[in-house]
Amino acid sequence: MSETEKAEVSRGLENVYIKATSLTYIDGERGILRYRGYDINDLANNATYEEVVHLMLYGELPNSEQLKRVKDVLNSSYEVPEDVLRVMEVLPKDSEPVALMEAGLAALATHEKEFKWKERDREKALEIIGKVSTITANVYRVKQGLTPRVPSPGESYAKSFLEATFSKSFTSQESSMMDKFLVLYADHEVPASTTAALVTASTLSDMYSCMVSAITALKGPLHGGAMEAAFRQFKEIGDPSKVDDWFERTIVKGGNRLMGFGHRVYRTYDPRGKIFKSMAEVAAQGEARKYLEIAEKLETLGVKHFESKKIYPNTDFYAGILMYGLGFPDFMFTPLFALSRTLGWLAHVVEYVDEQHRLIRPRALYVGPGKREFVPLNQRK
Amino acid sequence: MSETEKAEVSRGLENVYIKATSLTYIDGERGILRYRGYDINDLANNATYEEVVHLMLYGELPNSEQLKRVKDVLNSSYEVPEDVLRVMEVLPKDSEPVALMEAGLAALATHEKEFKWKERDREKALEIIGKVSTITANVYRVKQGLTPRVPSPGESYAKSFLEATFSKSFTSQESSMMDKFLVLYADHEVPASTTAALVTASTLSDMYSCMVSAITALKGPLHGGAMEAAFRQFKEIGDPSKVDDWFERTIVKGGNRLMGFGHRVYRTYDPRGKIFKSMAEVAAQGEARKYLEIAEKLETLGVKHFESKKIYPNTDFYAGILMYGLGFPDFMFTPLFALSRTLGWLAHVVEYVDEQHRLIRPRALYVGPGKREFVPLNQRK
Repeated sequence: MSETEKAEVSRGLENVYIKATSLTYIDGERGILRYRGYDINDLANNATYEEVVHLMLYGELPNSEQLKRVKDVLNSSYEVPEDVLRVMEVLPKDSEPVALMEAGLAALATHEKEFKWKERDREKALEIIGKVSTITANVYRVKQGLTPRVPSPGESYAKSFLEATFSKSFTSQESSMMDKFLVLYADHEVPASTTAALVTASTLSDMYSCMVSAITALKGPLHGGAMEAAFRQFKEIGDPSKVDDWFERTIVKGGNRLMGFGHRVYRTYDPRGKIFKSMAEVAAQGEARKYLEIAEKLETLGVKHFESKKIYPNTDFYAGILMYGLGFPDFMFTPLFALSRTLGWLAHVVEYVDEQHRLIRPRALYVGPGKREFVPLNQRK
Repeated sequence: MSETEKAEVSRGLENVYIKATSLTYIDGERGILRYRGYDINDLANNATYEEVVHLMLYGELPNSEQLKRVKDVLNSSYEVPEDVLRVMEVLPKDSEPVALMEAGLAALATHEKEFKWKERDREKALEIIGKVSTITANVYRVKQGLTPRVPSPGESYAKSFLEATFSKSFTSQESSMMDKFLVLYADHEVPASTTAALVTASTLSDMYSCMVSAITALKGPLHGGAMEAAFRQFKEIGDPSKVDDWFERTIVKGGNRLMGFGHRVYRTYDPRGKIFKSMAEVAAQGEARKYLEIAEKLETLGVKHFESKKIYPNTDFYAGILMYGLGFPDFMFTPLFALSRTLGWLAHVVEYVDEQHRLIRPRALYVGPGKREFVPLNQRK
C-alpha cells in the first residue's frame, strides 16, 4: 500500500496524456486548431469534408484520384442491414435522439463478426462514416414519424445526408454549409467521447463498438449537449430586447453557467466559433436571424463579464443557429455533432491501435476501510 | 507548445489514478482482494450476492431488513419494455453475444428520458442490476432460438437468473455456485470496462449508457474475452494426455500467450482463481471434469514455466469450467462476466459522480507536422 499512499488522483485526467497524435494540434492560449498541420480556417474555407476525411485517415490531402476513391467507398457504404433500421423504428419515438443513435450503432455492431484490427482499418472507417450518415438521417426521420431512408450516392456526403434526412433538394450553398459543419466538428483531440472510444479500442473490441462507446459519452449534458443547450438559451431569451435583463438576472445575479461559453482547452476565442459566426451571419434568415442577434448581444455581455476568467464563446455557441437555419430542429444538434465527430473518433482509434496500442488500465486510489472481520447476517444490527 | 514538449504519454494509463475508491482494494503482490474491507474469501464463502450488492452500493453489509429491501427492488425490476426484447430478437442470431447485450442495453437507454444523477442513484442501480439479469438470460435464449423469458421474482437473484435462462429448476447448491460467481466477478477496481463507464458517467450521460460503454470495452478479446479464450484452449487440447505436448509446442516453442494466465495487477495467484478452482473441483462432472484435469496439468506447467515472470493463473482460468458445469456454453462466458460486473460498474460510477465528479478530459501529445500551407486540389500530386 506504500506505493498507493504516495499516489495522487489525476482528477478528470487533466493534463494526463493518454496518447500521442499526429491528428489535431490545439493551442488553447492562441486559439489555434490544426488538422495534421493545416489550419482549421484553411480547411473550412477551401477543403470539402471528403478531403478532410482523407487527410485525417491517410495523413495527406488527397489528389483527385484518391478523392474519387474516398467518395466511391462512402457512396457504396450508405446501405445498412434492414434490422438496424427496424431497431430504430421499434424503440420509443420520444427517445433522446443520441440514445437512438447509440442503439442504431449497437445494432450495427451485432453485424460485426470476428472483427480484426490492422487489416483494413481505414477502409472500414470509411464504411462506418457512410453508415453513420444513414443512422443520423434516420434519427430525424424516425422521431418525425417518417419512413426510413438511405442516403443516395452522389457528389457530396453532406448533400446526400441532407437530402436523405429531409427528402428534398438542397442548393450547393446549403450543402456547403453542412459540409463546413462536418469539417469543423470533425476532431478536437481527446474529449470524453474520444477517450471512451480509445478505452474501448484498447481492448481490441470492434470498431462499431468504439463508436457506440463514444456516443454514450457524447450523450452527457457536459459534452455533446452543449450546442443544444446554447441554442435553447437563445430560445428561452426569445427576443434581442430581453438579452440584457436575462443576462443580469441569470448569469450575473443567478450565477448560472452561460452555455456555449468556456472550454477546458481554450483560454481565448475558439477558432471554430468565429467561422460558425461568420457563416451564421450569411445564412441566418427569419427566426434564425433573431437567434443570431440574441447570440451576438449575449457574446458581447459574456466576453466582458468573464474577461478575467478568460472564458469566451466556444464552437457550440453559433453552430446551432447555422444548423437551425438549415432546417434542423434543436434535438438533432447532438446527433449532428456525432455525425461529424465520427471521423475524429475513428481516426484516433485507428492511430492508437495501429501505432501505439496498449490496453488502457488505470488504477483507483484506495481510500476505504482497512481489513474488516466478516459478521454473519444474523449478528448484524 | 513548450508545455507539451516536456509531457510524456501515460501509455495504457498505467499507474495513473483515475479516481479514489472505497470499493475495492487489491494487493497484487500478496494476492489480496477486498470489497469495502472484507476479504473476497470471506464474502465468497459467507455472503450472498444480494448482500454484496448492498455492501458495494451502500457501504455496509445489510441487516435482514436492508437485505429484504434489496431483494424486493431486484425482484420488482426484472421486467423490461417489450421493445427491448424485440430488438434482441430482430438482430442476427449469430451476433457476438456481448454485442447483443450491448444492443439490448442501448435499447434500454432509449427509455431513460431526462435522467438526473444524485437523486436516486443507488435505487436506480438496483433496478439496472435487475434488468441486466433479463438481458443476459435472453442473450442465451435468443441465440438458442428460444422465446424470451423474464426472470421470476424469488429468493435468490442467481437462481431466478438460472431458471429464466434455461427454463428449468436448479438446486440450491447449483444456485449457490452461480451466486459465488456473481460475487467473485462483481468488481475489480478500474479495468478498461469500468474506465469506459467512468468516462461516460463523467459527462453526466445516463446510467444505462454507462453500462453500454462498459460492455463495448468488455467485448474486446483483451478484456472480457479471457474466460472464453482460456476455456477454448482446454477444448483445443481436448484430453489431459495431450497437455504436455501442446504446452511444449504452443507455449514453450510457439511463444504464444497462455490464456487465463497473468494479470496487469497480480504478481502472484489471483485469489479469485483459487476459489474458482476449489468450486470447480467440487462441481465439475463428465466433460467439465476432463477440462478441469487439463486445466490443472496446464497450471502446473504454466506456473513453472512463467515463474521468473511472476505470471500465475488468473480468475478466468477456472471460472469457465464452473460455468460450463452449470450448463452454459462458452459463448455465454463474457455475458456472465458482464452480468456480475454490472455491480462494480454501477458502484464505481455512483461513487464517482456522487463524491468526486469531474468531466474526464485527458490530453493527447501532439507529435505531428508543424503548420502546413494549404494546397488546392488541382495542384496536388
